[in-house]
Amino acid sequence: MAITKSQLPPFSVPPPPPTSIHSIFPSPPNPIKPGQILLIGSGPGHPSLLTIAAHRALTELADIVLADKLVPAAVLALIPSRVEVVIAKKFPGNADRAQQEMMERALKEARKGRCVVRLKQGDPAIYGRFGEEVLYFRNPPSRSPSTTTPAVDHPPLPPTLVIPGVSSALAAPTMFDIPCTQRGASTSFLITTPVGKGGKMLDMPKYERARTVVVLMGVARLRSVVKTLTGSGKDAGDYPPYLPIAIIERASMPDQRVVESTLEDIEHAMESAEVGAQRPPGMMVIGWSVSALWGDGNVDVLNEGDDGEGETLGKRASESTDILREASKAIEGEFREKNEQEMKQSEGDGVRWRVREGLASTWDMFNINSE
Amino acid sequence: MAITKSQLPPFSVPPPPPTSIHSIFPSPPNPIKPGQILLIGSGPGHPSLLTIAAHRALTELADIVLADKLVPAAVLALIPSRVEVVIAKKFPGNADRAQQEMMERALKEARKGRCVVRLKQGDPAIYGRFGEEVLYFRNPPSRSPSTTTPAVDHPPLPPTLVIPGVSSALAAPTMFDIPCTQRGASTSFLITTPVGKGGKMLDMPKYERARTVVVLMGVARLRSVVKTLTGSGKDAGDYPPYLPIAIIERASMPDQRVVESTLEDIEHAMESAEVGAQRPPGMMVIGWSVSALWGDGNVDVLNEGDDGEGETLGKRASESTDILREASKAIEGEFREKNEQEMKQSEGDGVRWRVREGLASTWDMFNINSE
Repeated sequence: MAITKSQLPPFSVPPPPPTSIHSIFPSPPNPIKPGQILLIGSGPGHPSLLTIAAHRALTELADIVLADKLVPAAVLALIPSRVEVVIAKKFPGNADRAQQEMMERALKEARKGRCVVRLKQGDPAIYGRFGEEVLYFRNPPSRSPSTTTPAVDHPPLPPTLVIPGVSSALAAPTMFDIPCTQRGASTSFLITTPVGKGGKMLDMPKYERARTVVVLMGVARLRSVVKTLTGSGKDAGDYPPYLPIAIIERASMPDQRVVESTLEDIEHAMESAEVGAQRPPGMMVIGWSVSALWGDGNVDVLNEGDDGEGETLGKRASESTDILREASKAIEGEFREKNEQEMKQSEGDGVRWRVREGLASTWDMFNINSE
Repeated sequence: MAITKSQLPPFSVPPPPPTSIHSIFPSPPNPIKPGQILLIGSGPGHPSLLTIAAHRALTELADIVLADKLVPAAVLALIPSRVEVVIAKKFPGNADRAQQEMMERALKEARKGRCVVRLKQGDPAIYGRFGEEVLYFRNPPSRSPSTTTPAVDHPPLPPTLVIPGVSSALAAPTMFDIPCTQRGASTSFLITTPVGKGGKMLDMPKYERARTVVVLMGVARLRSVVKTLTGSGKDAGDYPPYLPIAIIERASMPDQRVVESTLEDIEHAMESAEVGAQRPPGMMVIGWSVSALWGDGNVDVLNEGDDGEGETLGKRASESTDILREASKAIEGEFREKNEQEMKQSEGDGVRWRVREGLASTWDMFNINSE
C-alpha cells in the first residue's frame, strides 16, 4: 500500500548542486540577465506563504521592486534596504494611470539593465492586469509616451518571467477550514468578482448546489451582491437565503477574521456591534462548503450514494421539477438547522452568525527574518 | 502617484527577530508541539514553488513525511535523509483504502509525539480529501479500527495546521502565459473535474463566454469531456467548437508542455505524431483566455465599451435572442480566424494546433539545494 522514497523511479531533474549555508539556493548556473523583469506574487499576507522563488527574487535578485498597493507590509519588510521600493498609489479613478506609470517605470529600469521585480498581491495572474503587463513588456514602445525625447532603438529585454504565487482566493478559505472542494458538499469552485472595467457591476453566477463561489473585491458592495444572488429572474442568482456565506478578512495576517452566516443574515452580522469595523481586504465564500467542516462535519448535502452509482441531487435539482425541488429543499433544510445550531452554540441563542479571528500560534513557527 | 517604503503606515506585525545565517527563519519562539500534524502542499512541481512555510516543514520540522503519490520527485528530494518518507500507493479501486491507511499512520505517528507532515500535491485543499483529514484528526478514533488492541485514552493532539500552497489549477496556465482572468477575455474562472466519487462522470458547466474553465483530472477522459462540452441539450455545455482549449502537462517541471487548439481539433492534436505520448499529470484550460496573450494580444472578445458603460456582449448573448447570438458569433469569428492564423504560423499551414514545451532557462536561477 505504501512505498518508500528509495523505491521511487528516477526523476528527470539533474541532482542539485552542493549546499550553501548562506542560502537554500546554490550559486546560479547562469547569472540573471541584465534587464530581467520578474512578475511575482506576494501570497495572501503571511510572509511564509511567499514561494521560495518569490522570496529569492525579493531578497537576492531585485535591484528595484515596483509593488502594488495591497502587497502586505510584512512582505515589503523582507526587502533589503539596498533595494529601491516603489509602491503604486492606486485610488478610485486613478487605477489606469497608476498601472501605466508602473509599467513605464519597470521598462525604464529594465532598459538601464536593472533587475526589476513587479510585485503583486496574491497570485500575479488573478485580477492583476497580468496580461496587460506581459503584452507591454513583450512589445514595449520604443520610447515613453510621456516624454518628448526622440525614439531610441533599445536592445530587446529578456523575456518577462512570471512566478505563480498563492492566491488568497484559495488560501483564505483554507486558513479557516473552509474547503473549496469537498466530497458531499462541493465538486467545483468558481472565482469571480462583481467589479468590471470602470467599476461597473458584472453578472453574478446562477446557484449551483455543488459549487463553492469565491467573490473577490465585492465586500464593499455586499448589499447589492446578496440582493443579486438571492433574487430570482433573468439576471438574478436564485440562491437560497439560508445558504452559508463567509466573509474572510486579512487572511493569514495576525488579525485575520471570518464572519460566517447565511445570505439572509450576513448584512445584519456585518453591521452588528460584535463585528464592528471592517478589516479590508476582504472576500466572500458562498456555498455549502462554508459549513462543511463545522463540528463533526456537515458534508452530505449532495446526498450521493456511497456506491457512486446514484445521481447527485444537485443534478436532479437542476431538472427543476417541483418534486425534485422539494426533495432538495428538505435535505438543505437539515443542513440549515445544523448550521443554525452551530452558530447559536458559538454566539448565544438567537444570533445567526459566528466570528472566528486571529492566527493560530503555530504560525509563529513560520515567522521569517528580514535582511 | 507613488509612495516610498518609508512613507507606509506602520503594520501590526512585531519586528522580526535578528538574522540567522543558517536559515531564513529565526529560532522559533515556541518550539513545535509534540504530535503536531502539518497538512501542506508541494506546489505544482518546481521546488521553488513550495511556500517558505512548506519548505521549512519538510526540511526542518518533519520527523515523518506521508506523501501522496503525485507529489513531484524534485520536492521529495529536498527532504533530509534522517526523515522517514512514506508515499501512498493509490491505484484505481484502492484510493479509499490508501487514504485511510495514510490517515491512520499519521495519527499513530503523531500519538508517538512525532511531527507529521502530510504532503499533498499542489494546494492541499483542492480535490485532496483535505476535509476528510481535518475532520479525522480533529476527532480521531480512540483506537485504530484495523487492530484488535483495546481502546486507550490518548491525550488530545495539537490542532492540525493546514498550509496553503500553489495550486496547479492556477499556476499551470500562468506558466504558459494563459491568464485565468483577463480584461476583455475572461472575468471569472471555474475549477472543476469530470471525475466524481467512485469515478462516475460529473456534470460539466454550461458555456459562459466571459469565463475560463480549468478541468482537473480530465485528460484521460478527453473525448467524453469534449463531447459533453460541445454538445447541446439539457446535460451538455453548448460550447462553440472553435473555442480555444489548452492541455497543459507537468506544469513547472523541466519537460512541461502545452498543446493549444480548439475544442473540435484537440483530440486530433493529442493523437498526432507531433504530440506523441502524453506526459501526466495534465489538465485542461478552456476559454478565450487561452489565446488572449497570443502575438500582440487577443483580448477584445467581450467587446466592452471603453467608457465602462456598455453591457458586455457575454451578458447580452445570455439573453439568447437570435440577433445577439449572431452578433456574438461574428465577433468570435474574428478571434477564431486570428487564432487559426497564429496556430498555422507556428505549425505550418493546415495544422490547427501549436505546441510549446520546456522551462525557460531563467528558472535555473531558482533551483534549490537538497540537504
